[in-house]
Amino acid sequence: MSKNIKVNAAILIIGNEILSGRTQDTNTSTLATWLNSIGIKVDEVRVVPDEENMIVETLNFLRKTYDYVFTTGGIGPTHDDITAQSVSKAFGKKYEIHKEAFKILESYYKPGEFNEGRQKMVWMPSDAELILNPTSGAPGFSLENVFCLPGVPSILKSMLGGLKNKIVGGEPILSSTISLRTIESEIANSLTKVQKDNKDVEIGSYPFFQAGKLGVSIVIRSENQSKIDACNSQILDFVKKKKIEVVDR
Amino acid sequence: MSKNIKVNAAILIIGNEILSGRTQDTNTSTLATWLNSIGIKVDEVRVVPDEENMIVETLNFLRKTYDYVFTTGGIGPTHDDITAQSVSKAFGKKYEIHKEAFKILESYYKPGEFNEGRQKMVWMPSDAELILNPTSGAPGFSLENVFCLPGVPSILKSMLGGLKNKIVGGEPILSSTISLRTIESEIANSLTKVQKDNKDVEIGSYPFFQAGKLGVSIVIRSENQSKIDACNSQILDFVKKKKIEVVDR
Repeated sequence: MSKNIKVNAAILIIGNEILSGRTQDTNTSTLATWLNSIGIKVDEVRVVPDEENMIVETLNFLRKTYDYVFTTGGIGPTHDDITAQSVSKAFGKKYEIHKEAFKILESYYKPGEFNEGRQKMVWMPSDAELILNPTSGAPGFSLENVFCLPGVPSILKSMLGGLKNKIVGGEPILSSTISLRTIESEIANSLTKVQKDNKDVEIGSYPFFQAGKLGVSIVIRSENQSKIDACNSQILDFVKKKKIEVVDR
Repeated sequence: MSKNIKVNAAILIIGNEILSGRTQDTNTSTLATWLNSIGIKVDEVRVVPDEENMIVETLNFLRKTYDYVFTTGGIGPTHDDITAQSVSKAFGKKYEIHKEAFKILESYYKPGEFNEGRQKMVWMPSDAELILNPTSGAPGFSLENVFCLPGVPSILKSMLGGLKNKIVGGEPILSSTISLRTIESEIANSLTKVQKDNKDVEIGSYPFFQAGKLGVSIVIRSENQSKIDACNSQILDFVKKKKIEVVDR
Protein backbone atom coordinates (compact mmCIF):
# COMPACT_ATOMS: atom_id res chain seq x y z
CA MET A 1 0.00 0.00 0.00
CA SER A 2 1.15 3.50 -0.78
CA LYS A 3 1.83 5.90 2.06
CA ASN A 4 0.07 8.51 -0.05
CA ILE A 5 1.12 11.37 2.20
CA LYS A 6 1.27 14.69 0.42
CA VAL A 7 4.09 16.86 1.73
CA ASN A 8 4.58 20.33 0.30
CA ALA A 9 7.08 23.17 0.48
CA ALA A 10 7.69 26.74 -0.55
CA ILE A 11 11.00 28.27 -1.64
CA LEU A 12 11.86 31.82 -0.60
CA ILE A 13 14.66 33.37 -2.66
CA ILE A 14 16.13 36.39 -0.88
CA GLY A 15 18.20 38.86 -2.89
CA ASN A 16 18.10 42.10 -4.85
CA GLU A 17 20.41 40.56 -7.45
CA ILE A 18 17.65 38.20 -8.65
CA LEU A 19 15.02 40.97 -8.78
CA SER A 20 17.33 43.30 -10.72
CA GLY A 21 17.95 40.63 -13.36
CA ARG A 22 21.68 40.68 -12.69
CA THR A 23 21.75 37.10 -11.44
CA GLN A 24 19.83 34.21 -12.93
CA ASP A 25 18.36 32.09 -10.12
CA THR A 26 19.19 28.40 -10.47
CA ASN A 27 18.55 27.35 -6.87
CA THR A 28 14.80 26.92 -7.43
CA SER A 29 15.40 24.22 -10.00
CA THR A 30 18.08 22.51 -7.86
CA LEU A 31 15.92 22.51 -4.73
CA ALA A 32 12.70 21.50 -6.52
CA THR A 33 14.35 18.54 -8.27
CA TRP A 34 15.90 17.35 -5.02
CA LEU A 35 12.68 17.83 -3.02
CA ASN A 36 10.66 15.89 -5.61
CA SER A 37 13.11 13.00 -5.27
CA ILE A 38 12.35 12.77 -1.53
CA GLY A 39 8.59 13.14 -1.98
CA ILE A 40 8.09 16.85 -1.39
CA LYS A 41 6.20 19.00 -3.90
CA VAL A 42 7.07 22.66 -4.28
CA ASP A 43 3.78 24.58 -4.38
CA GLU A 44 5.08 28.14 -4.50
CA VAL A 45 8.26 30.18 -4.96
CA ARG A 46 8.70 33.81 -3.96
CA VAL A 47 11.60 36.14 -4.65
CA VAL A 48 11.90 39.12 -2.30
CA PRO A 49 14.46 41.91 -1.86
CA ASP A 50 16.97 42.29 1.01
CA GLU A 51 14.39 44.13 3.13
CA GLU A 52 13.65 42.96 6.65
CA ASN A 53 9.91 43.66 6.74
CA MET A 54 9.30 41.95 3.44
CA ILE A 55 11.30 38.87 4.48
CA VAL A 56 9.57 38.66 7.88
CA GLU A 57 6.04 38.97 6.47
CA THR A 58 6.64 36.59 3.59
CA LEU A 59 8.33 33.98 5.78
CA ASN A 60 5.58 34.11 8.40
CA PHE A 61 2.97 33.49 5.74
CA LEU A 62 4.87 30.69 4.02
CA ARG A 63 5.89 28.79 7.15
CA LYS A 64 2.29 28.67 8.35
CA THR A 65 0.96 27.64 4.92
CA TYR A 66 3.40 24.93 3.81
CA ASP A 67 4.98 21.90 5.51
CA TYR A 68 8.49 23.17 4.78
CA VAL A 69 10.09 26.44 3.71
CA PHE A 70 13.57 26.66 2.17
CA THR A 71 15.21 30.07 1.99
CA THR A 72 18.26 30.84 -0.14
CA GLY A 73 20.59 33.80 0.14
CA GLY A 74 21.44 36.48 2.66
CA ILE A 75 23.53 34.45 5.12
CA GLY A 76 26.98 35.83 4.21
CA PRO A 77 29.13 38.39 6.05
CA THR A 78 28.13 41.69 4.37
CA HIS A 79 25.58 44.39 5.24
CA ASP A 80 23.06 43.11 2.67
CA ASP A 81 22.97 39.65 4.32
CA ILE A 82 20.01 39.97 6.68
CA THR A 83 18.33 36.56 6.52
CA ALA A 84 19.34 35.36 10.01
CA GLN A 85 18.18 38.54 11.75
CA SER A 86 14.95 38.53 9.73
CA VAL A 87 14.21 34.89 10.60
CA SER A 88 14.86 35.71 14.27
CA LYS A 89 12.31 38.50 14.07
CA ALA A 90 9.76 36.35 12.22
CA PHE A 91 9.92 33.72 14.98
CA GLY A 92 10.21 36.23 17.84
CA LYS A 93 13.57 34.68 18.79
CA LYS A 94 16.75 36.31 20.03
CA TYR A 95 19.40 37.00 17.35
CA GLU A 96 22.57 35.76 19.01
CA ILE A 97 25.90 33.97 18.61
CA HIS A 98 25.43 30.26 17.93
CA LYS A 99 28.15 28.62 20.03
CA GLU A 100 28.60 25.52 17.87
CA ALA A 101 28.79 27.63 14.68
CA PHE A 102 31.37 29.86 16.40
CA LYS A 103 33.53 26.81 17.22
CA ILE A 104 33.23 25.47 13.68
CA LEU A 105 34.34 28.72 12.06
CA GLU A 106 37.00 29.43 14.70
CA SER A 107 38.71 26.15 13.82
CA TYR A 108 37.97 26.51 10.08
CA TYR A 109 39.98 29.72 9.72
CA LYS A 110 43.67 30.22 10.42
CA PRO A 111 44.46 31.90 13.77
CA GLY A 112 43.68 35.61 13.55
CA GLU A 113 41.56 35.26 10.40
CA PHE A 114 38.20 34.78 12.13
CA ASN A 115 37.52 38.51 11.93
CA GLU A 116 34.45 40.60 12.72
CA GLY A 117 32.97 40.21 9.21
CA ARG A 118 33.19 36.43 9.44
CA GLN A 119 31.85 36.42 12.98
CA LYS A 120 28.60 37.91 11.62
CA MET A 121 27.95 34.51 10.05
CA VAL A 122 27.58 32.80 13.45
CA TRP A 123 24.76 35.11 14.55
CA MET A 124 21.51 33.15 14.28
CA PRO A 125 18.08 32.88 15.87
CA SER A 126 18.27 31.20 19.29
CA ASP A 127 17.45 27.47 19.13
CA ALA A 128 18.59 27.29 15.49
CA GLU A 129 20.01 23.91 14.41
CA LEU A 130 23.02 23.99 12.13
CA ILE A 131 23.09 22.77 8.54
CA LEU A 132 26.69 21.82 7.89
CA ASN A 133 28.57 23.32 4.95
CA PRO A 134 31.24 21.00 3.52
CA THR A 135 32.35 23.60 0.94
CA SER A 136 33.13 26.85 2.69
CA GLY A 137 32.69 26.33 6.44
CA ALA A 138 29.88 28.77 7.30
CA PRO A 139 26.83 26.70 8.22
CA GLY A 140 23.20 27.33 7.32
CA PHE A 141 20.53 26.74 9.93
CA SER A 142 17.02 25.47 10.49
CA LEU A 143 14.31 26.50 12.92
CA GLU A 144 11.12 24.42 13.11
CA ASN A 145 10.03 23.93 9.49
CA VAL A 146 12.27 26.64 7.99
CA PHE A 147 15.65 25.79 6.41
CA CYS A 148 18.04 28.62 5.57
CA LEU A 149 20.61 27.95 2.88
CA PRO A 150 23.18 30.13 1.11
CA GLY A 151 22.63 31.76 -2.27
CA VAL A 152 25.81 30.52 -4.01
CA PRO A 153 24.54 27.53 -6.05
CA SER A 154 27.57 25.26 -5.63
CA ILE A 155 27.60 25.73 -1.85
CA LEU A 156 23.84 25.20 -1.59
CA LYS A 157 24.13 21.94 -3.56
CA SER A 158 26.86 20.64 -1.27
CA MET A 159 24.64 21.16 1.78
CA LEU A 160 21.56 19.22 0.64
CA GLY A 161 22.97 15.84 1.63
CA GLY A 162 23.13 16.98 5.27
CA LEU A 163 19.42 17.82 5.27
CA LYS A 164 18.06 14.37 4.53
CA ASN A 165 17.66 13.19 8.11
CA LYS A 166 15.94 16.44 9.13
CA ILE A 167 13.16 16.29 6.54
CA VAL A 168 10.37 13.76 6.18
CA GLY A 169 8.92 13.49 2.68
CA GLY A 170 6.04 11.47 1.27
CA GLU A 171 6.08 9.17 -1.72
CA PRO A 172 8.68 10.32 -4.26
CA ILE A 173 7.05 12.21 -7.12
CA LEU A 174 7.63 10.22 -10.29
CA SER A 175 7.53 11.60 -13.79
CA SER A 176 7.53 10.39 -17.35
CA THR A 177 8.09 12.38 -20.53
CA ILE A 178 6.94 11.63 -24.08
CA SER A 179 8.39 13.89 -26.78
CA LEU A 180 6.46 14.15 -30.02
CA ARG A 181 7.15 15.63 -33.45
CA THR A 182 4.00 17.75 -33.48
CA ILE A 183 2.66 21.09 -32.31
CA GLU A 184 0.51 21.68 -29.26
CA SER A 185 -2.66 22.64 -31.12
CA GLU A 186 -2.70 19.26 -32.93
CA ILE A 187 -2.95 17.32 -29.69
CA ALA A 188 -4.69 19.80 -27.37
CA ASN A 189 -8.13 18.19 -27.51
CA SER A 190 -6.89 14.60 -27.15
CA LEU A 191 -4.66 15.61 -24.25
CA THR A 192 -7.52 17.41 -22.53
CA LYS A 193 -9.48 14.16 -22.68
CA VAL A 194 -6.60 12.20 -21.09
CA GLN A 195 -6.36 14.79 -18.30
CA LYS A 196 -10.13 14.56 -17.66
CA ASP A 197 -9.88 10.75 -17.44
CA ASN A 198 -6.93 10.99 -15.03
CA LYS A 199 -7.73 13.88 -12.73
CA ASP A 200 -5.18 13.14 -9.99
CA VAL A 201 -2.25 12.96 -12.41
CA GLU A 202 -0.47 16.17 -13.41
CA ILE A 203 -0.12 16.40 -17.21
CA GLY A 204 1.91 19.25 -18.68
CA SER A 205 2.48 20.12 -22.33
CA TYR A 206 5.67 21.98 -23.32
CA PRO A 207 6.59 23.03 -26.84
CA PHE A 208 10.26 22.81 -27.77
CA PHE A 209 12.50 23.84 -30.67
CA GLN A 210 15.38 21.47 -31.31
CA ALA A 211 17.73 21.25 -34.29
CA GLY A 212 15.40 23.53 -36.22
CA LYS A 213 12.32 21.38 -35.63
CA LEU A 214 9.25 21.94 -33.50
CA GLY A 215 8.06 19.38 -30.99
CA VAL A 216 6.03 18.96 -27.83
CA SER A 217 7.06 17.24 -24.62
CA ILE A 218 4.25 15.81 -22.54
CA VAL A 219 5.23 15.44 -18.90
CA ILE A 220 3.17 13.19 -16.60
CA ARG A 221 3.71 13.43 -12.84
CA SER A 222 2.29 11.39 -9.99
CA GLU A 223 3.38 9.47 -6.89
CA ASN A 224 1.86 6.37 -8.49
CA GLN A 225 3.70 4.62 -11.34
CA SER A 226 0.66 2.65 -12.49
CA LYS A 227 -1.32 5.88 -12.93
CA ILE A 228 1.53 7.29 -15.01
CA ASP A 229 1.57 4.10 -17.09
CA ALA A 230 -2.18 4.37 -17.70
CA CYS A 231 -1.81 7.95 -18.96
CA ASN A 232 1.17 6.98 -21.09
CA SER A 233 -0.79 4.30 -22.90
CA GLN A 234 -3.78 6.60 -23.52
CA ILE A 235 -1.41 9.18 -24.97
CA LEU A 236 0.40 6.66 -27.15
CA ASP A 237 -3.01 5.50 -28.41
CA PHE A 238 -4.02 8.89 -29.78
CA VAL A 239 -0.48 9.52 -31.02
CA LYS A 240 -0.66 6.33 -33.09
CA LYS A 241 -4.10 7.18 -34.49
CA LYS A 242 -2.90 10.66 -35.47
CA LYS A 243 0.29 9.18 -37.00
CA ILE A 244 2.49 11.47 -34.93
CA GLU A 245 6.17 10.54 -34.63
CA VAL A 246 7.42 9.78 -31.11
CA VAL A 247 10.84 11.46 -30.83
CA ASP A 248 11.74 10.25 -27.37
CA ARG A 249 10.20 8.58 -24.36
CA MET B 1 15.96 68.06 -12.15
CA SER B 2 15.23 64.37 -11.86
CA LYS B 3 11.66 63.16 -12.26
CA ASN B 4 12.35 60.91 -9.29
CA ILE B 5 9.19 58.89 -9.79
CA LYS B 6 9.44 55.39 -8.37
CA VAL B 7 7.55 52.87 -10.46
CA ASN B 8 7.44 49.24 -9.38
CA ALA B 9 6.29 45.90 -10.69
CA ALA B 10 5.80 42.27 -9.78
CA ILE B 11 6.37 39.24 -11.99
CA LEU B 12 4.03 36.26 -11.77
CA ILE B 13 5.45 33.09 -13.32
CA ILE B 14 2.68 30.57 -13.99
CA GLY B 15 3.65 26.95 -14.56
CA ASN B 16 4.08 23.56 -12.90
CA GLU B 17 7.23 23.00 -14.96
CA ILE B 18 9.11 25.69 -13.02
CA LEU B 19 7.93 24.40 -9.63
CA SER B 20 8.88 20.81 -10.48
CA GLY B 21 12.42 21.88 -11.38
CA ARG B 22 12.06 20.53 -14.92
CA THR B 23 12.37 23.96 -16.51
CA GLN B 24 14.78 26.67 -15.45
CA ASP B 25 12.99 30.04 -15.47
CA THR B 26 14.88 32.67 -17.44
CA ASN B 27 11.99 35.09 -18.02
CA THR B 28 12.46 36.79 -14.63
CA SER B 29 15.93 37.92 -15.56
CA THR B 30 14.85 39.02 -19.09
CA LEU B 31 11.87 41.00 -17.81
CA ALA B 32 13.70 42.53 -14.85
CA THR B 33 16.60 43.73 -16.99
CA TRP B 34 14.24 45.25 -19.54
CA LEU B 35 12.02 46.85 -16.88
CA ASN B 36 15.05 48.41 -15.16
CA SER B 37 16.07 49.96 -18.47
CA ILE B 38 12.72 51.76 -18.68
CA GLY B 39 12.74 52.85 -15.04
CA ILE B 40 10.64 50.14 -13.40
CA LYS B 41 11.93 48.24 -10.38
CA VAL B 42 10.83 44.66 -9.81
CA ASP B 43 9.91 44.35 -6.14
CA GLU B 44 8.64 40.79 -6.03
CA VAL B 45 8.44 37.60 -8.09
CA ARG B 46 6.07 34.71 -7.44
CA VAL B 47 5.93 31.33 -9.12
CA VAL B 48 2.58 29.51 -8.87
CA PRO B 49 1.19 26.27 -10.32
CA ASP B 50 -1.39 25.93 -13.10
CA GLU B 51 -4.26 26.18 -10.59
CA GLU B 52 -7.01 28.71 -11.10
CA ASN B 53 -7.63 29.69 -7.47
CA MET B 54 -3.96 30.21 -6.80
CA ILE B 55 -3.52 32.35 -9.92
CA VAL B 56 -6.64 34.42 -9.18
CA GLU B 57 -5.71 35.11 -5.54
CA THR B 58 -2.08 35.87 -6.28
CA LEU B 59 -2.89 38.13 -9.22
CA ASN B 60 -5.50 40.07 -7.27
CA PHE B 61 -2.99 40.74 -4.51
CA LEU B 62 -0.16 41.72 -6.83
CA ARG B 63 -2.16 43.99 -9.13
CA LYS B 64 -3.44 46.00 -6.15
CA THR B 65 0.01 46.20 -4.54
CA TYR B 66 2.29 47.09 -7.46
CA ASP B 67 2.11 49.58 -10.34
CA TYR B 68 2.46 46.82 -12.94
CA VAL B 69 2.20 43.04 -13.01
CA PHE B 70 3.74 40.88 -15.74
CA THR B 71 2.61 37.27 -16.01
CA THR B 72 4.44 34.62 -18.04
CA GLY B 73 3.11 31.27 -19.19
CA GLY B 74 -0.24 29.55 -19.59
CA ILE B 75 -1.51 31.26 -22.74
CA GLY B 76 -1.02 28.38 -25.19
CA PRO B 77 -3.60 25.97 -26.65
CA THR B 78 -3.48 23.02 -24.20
CA HIS B 79 -5.56 22.10 -21.12
CA ASP B 80 -2.86 23.31 -18.72
CA ASP B 81 -2.94 26.84 -20.23
CA ILE B 82 -5.40 28.62 -17.94
CA THR B 83 -3.98 32.12 -17.57
CA ALA B 84 -6.61 33.94 -19.69
CA GLN B 85 -9.55 32.34 -17.91
CA SER B 86 -7.92 32.96 -14.52
CA VAL B 87 -7.26 36.64 -15.33
CA SER B 88 -10.91 36.99 -16.45
CA LYS B 89 -12.03 35.60 -13.11
CA ALA B 90 -9.63 37.81 -11.13
CA PHE B 91 -11.05 40.93 -12.80
CA GLY B 92 -14.67 39.69 -12.84
CA LYS B 93 -14.67 39.97 -16.66
CA LYS B 94 -16.28 37.70 -19.25
CA TYR B 95 -13.94 35.11 -20.81
CA GLU B 96 -14.74 35.42 -24.51
CA ILE B 97 -13.42 35.42 -28.06
CA HIS B 98 -11.31 38.50 -28.79
CA LYS B 99 -12.38 39.51 -32.31
CA GLU B 100 -9.11 41.17 -33.33
CA ALA B 101 -7.06 38.20 -32.04
CA PHE B 102 -9.37 35.87 -33.99
CA LYS B 103 -8.74 37.82 -37.20
CA ILE B 104 -4.97 37.83 -36.61
CA LEU B 105 -4.75 34.07 -36.13
CA GLU B 106 -7.28 33.30 -38.89
CA SER B 107 -5.03 35.05 -41.39
CA TYR B 108 -1.81 33.75 -39.75
CA TYR B 109 -2.67 30.10 -40.36
CA LYS B 110 -3.28 28.40 -43.72
CA PRO B 111 -6.95 27.83 -44.61
CA GLY B 112 -8.34 24.95 -42.54
CA GLU B 113 -5.46 25.01 -40.03
CA PHE B 114 -7.06 27.40 -37.53
CA ASN B 115 -8.45 24.46 -35.56
CA GLU B 116 -10.22 24.25 -32.19
CA GLY B 117 -6.96 23.95 -30.23
CA ARG B 118 -5.61 27.12 -31.79
CA GLN B 119 -8.89 28.94 -31.37
CA LYS B 120 -8.51 28.53 -27.59
CA MET B 121 -5.72 31.12 -27.83
CA VAL B 122 -8.12 33.92 -28.85
CA TRP B 123 -10.28 33.51 -25.73
CA MET B 124 -9.44 36.39 -23.40
CA PRO B 125 -10.99 38.60 -20.73
CA SER B 126 -13.41 41.14 -22.25
CA ASP B 127 -11.76 44.56 -22.78
CA ALA B 128 -8.31 42.97 -23.07
CA GLU B 129 -5.85 44.83 -25.30
CA LEU B 130 -3.61 42.73 -27.49
CA ILE B 131 0.16 42.47 -27.18
CA LEU B 132 1.37 41.56 -30.66
CA ASN B 133 3.54 38.50 -31.19
CA PRO B 134 5.98 38.86 -34.11
CA THR B 135 7.32 35.32 -33.63
CA SER B 136 4.44 32.87 -33.58
CA GLY B 137 1.23 34.79 -34.19
CA ALA B 138 -0.75 34.19 -31.00
CA PRO B 139 -0.92 37.52 -29.14
CA GLY B 140 -0.60 38.18 -25.43
CA PHE B 141 -2.91 40.67 -23.77
CA SER B 142 -3.12 43.37 -21.16
CA LEU B 143 -5.93 44.48 -18.88
CA GLU B 144 -5.46 47.60 -16.74
CA ASN B 145 -2.02 47.20 -15.12
CA VAL B 146 -1.63 43.47 -15.87
CA PHE B 147 0.37 42.25 -18.89
CA CYS B 148 0.13 38.59 -19.87
CA LEU B 149 3.03 37.15 -21.86
CA PRO B 150 3.91 33.64 -23.04
CA GLY B 151 6.28 31.29 -21.21
CA VAL B 152 8.56 30.43 -24.14
CA PRO B 153 11.57 32.75 -23.59
CA SER B 154 12.31 33.57 -27.24
CA ILE B 155 8.68 34.49 -27.96
CA LEU B 156 8.42 36.57 -24.78
CA LYS B 157 11.57 38.50 -25.73
CA SER B 158 10.20 39.28 -29.19
CA MET B 159 7.06 40.83 -27.67
CA LEU B 160 8.70 43.31 -25.29
CA GLY B 161 9.27 45.94 -27.99
CA GLY B 162 5.50 46.19 -28.53
CA LEU B 163 4.93 47.00 -24.86
CA LYS B 164 6.94 50.21 -24.67
CA ASN B 165 4.12 52.61 -25.53
CA LYS B 166 1.76 50.94 -23.04
CA ILE B 167 4.00 51.32 -20.00
CA VAL B 168 5.18 54.46 -18.25
CA GLY B 169 8.37 54.07 -16.27
CA GLY B 170 10.31 56.44 -14.04
CA GLU B 171 13.97 57.33 -14.21
CA PRO B 172 15.99 54.39 -15.59
CA ILE B 173 17.70 52.48 -12.80
CA LEU B 174 21.46 52.80 -13.30
CA SER B 175 24.07 50.45 -11.96
CA SER B 176 27.80 50.21 -11.59
CA THR B 177 29.91 47.18 -10.69
CA ILE B 178 33.36 47.02 -9.11
CA SER B 179 34.97 43.58 -9.04
CA LEU B 180 37.68 43.01 -6.48
CA ARG B 181 40.24 40.28 -5.82
CA THR B 182 39.20 39.78 -2.21
CA ILE B 183 36.68 37.93 -0.08
CA GLU B 184 33.53 39.39 1.41
CA SER B 185 34.59 39.22 5.04
CA GLU B 186 37.66 41.43 4.30
CA ILE B 187 35.49 44.32 3.13
CA ALA B 188 32.24 43.76 5.04
CA ASN B 189 32.82 46.48 7.66
CA SER B 190 34.04 49.11 5.19
CA LEU B 191 31.13 48.38 2.88
CA THR B 192 28.64 48.65 5.73
CA LYS B 193 30.00 52.14 6.40
CA VAL B 194 29.55 53.16 2.75
CA GLN B 195 25.96 51.86 2.80
CA LYS B 196 25.25 53.82 6.00
CA ASP B 197 26.63 57.00 4.42
CA ASN B 198 24.52 56.45 1.26
CA LYS B 199 21.19 55.17 2.50
CA ASP B 200 19.15 55.68 -0.69
CA VAL B 201 21.62 53.79 -2.89
CA GLU B 202 21.33 50.01 -3.16
CA ILE B 203 24.71 48.35 -2.56
CA GLY B 204 25.01 44.59 -3.07
CA SER B 205 27.99 42.34 -2.48
CA TYR B 206 28.32 39.12 -4.50
CA PRO B 207 31.15 36.60 -4.19
CA PHE B 208 32.33 34.94 -7.40
CA PHE B 209 34.69 32.16 -8.43
CA GLN B 210 36.43 32.74 -11.75
CA ALA B 211 39.35 30.93 -13.32
CA GLY B 212 40.04 29.28 -9.97
CA LYS B 213 40.19 32.55 -8.05
CA LEU B 214 37.84 34.10 -5.53
CA GLY B 215 36.52 37.61 -5.90
CA VAL B 216 33.69 39.91 -4.89
CA SER B 217 31.56 42.08 -7.15
CA ILE B 218 30.07 45.16 -5.55
CA VAL B 219 26.99 46.37 -7.38
CA ILE B 220 25.70 49.90 -6.80
CA ARG B 221 22.19 50.79 -8.05
CA SER B 222 20.36 54.11 -8.10
CA GLU B 223 18.40 56.36 -10.47
CA ASN B 224 21.02 59.02 -9.81
CA GLN B 225 24.46 58.75 -11.46
CA SER B 226 26.13 61.25 -9.12
CA LYS B 227 25.06 59.18 -6.10
CA ILE B 228 26.56 56.10 -7.72
CA ASP B 229 29.77 58.04 -8.41
CA ALA B 230 29.98 59.13 -4.77
CA CYS B 231 29.67 55.52 -3.59
CA ASN B 232 32.19 54.38 -6.15
CA SER B 233 34.82 56.79 -4.92
CA GLN B 234 34.25 55.87 -1.25
CA ILE B 235 34.65 52.20 -2.17
CA LEU B 236 37.80 52.82 -4.22
CA ASP B 237 39.19 54.75 -1.23
CA PHE B 238 38.98 51.83 1.18
CA VAL B 239 40.07 49.41 -1.55
CA LYS B 240 43.26 51.44 -2.05
CA LYS B 241 43.95 51.63 1.69
CA LYS B 242 43.51 47.87 2.05
CA LYS B 243 45.72 47.27 -1.05
CA ILE B 244 43.00 45.16 -2.71
CA GLU B 245 43.34 44.55 -6.45
CA VAL B 246 40.55 45.92 -8.64
CA VAL B 247 39.80 43.21 -11.22
CA ASP B 248 37.23 45.07 -13.23
CA ARG B 249 35.08 48.17 -13.07
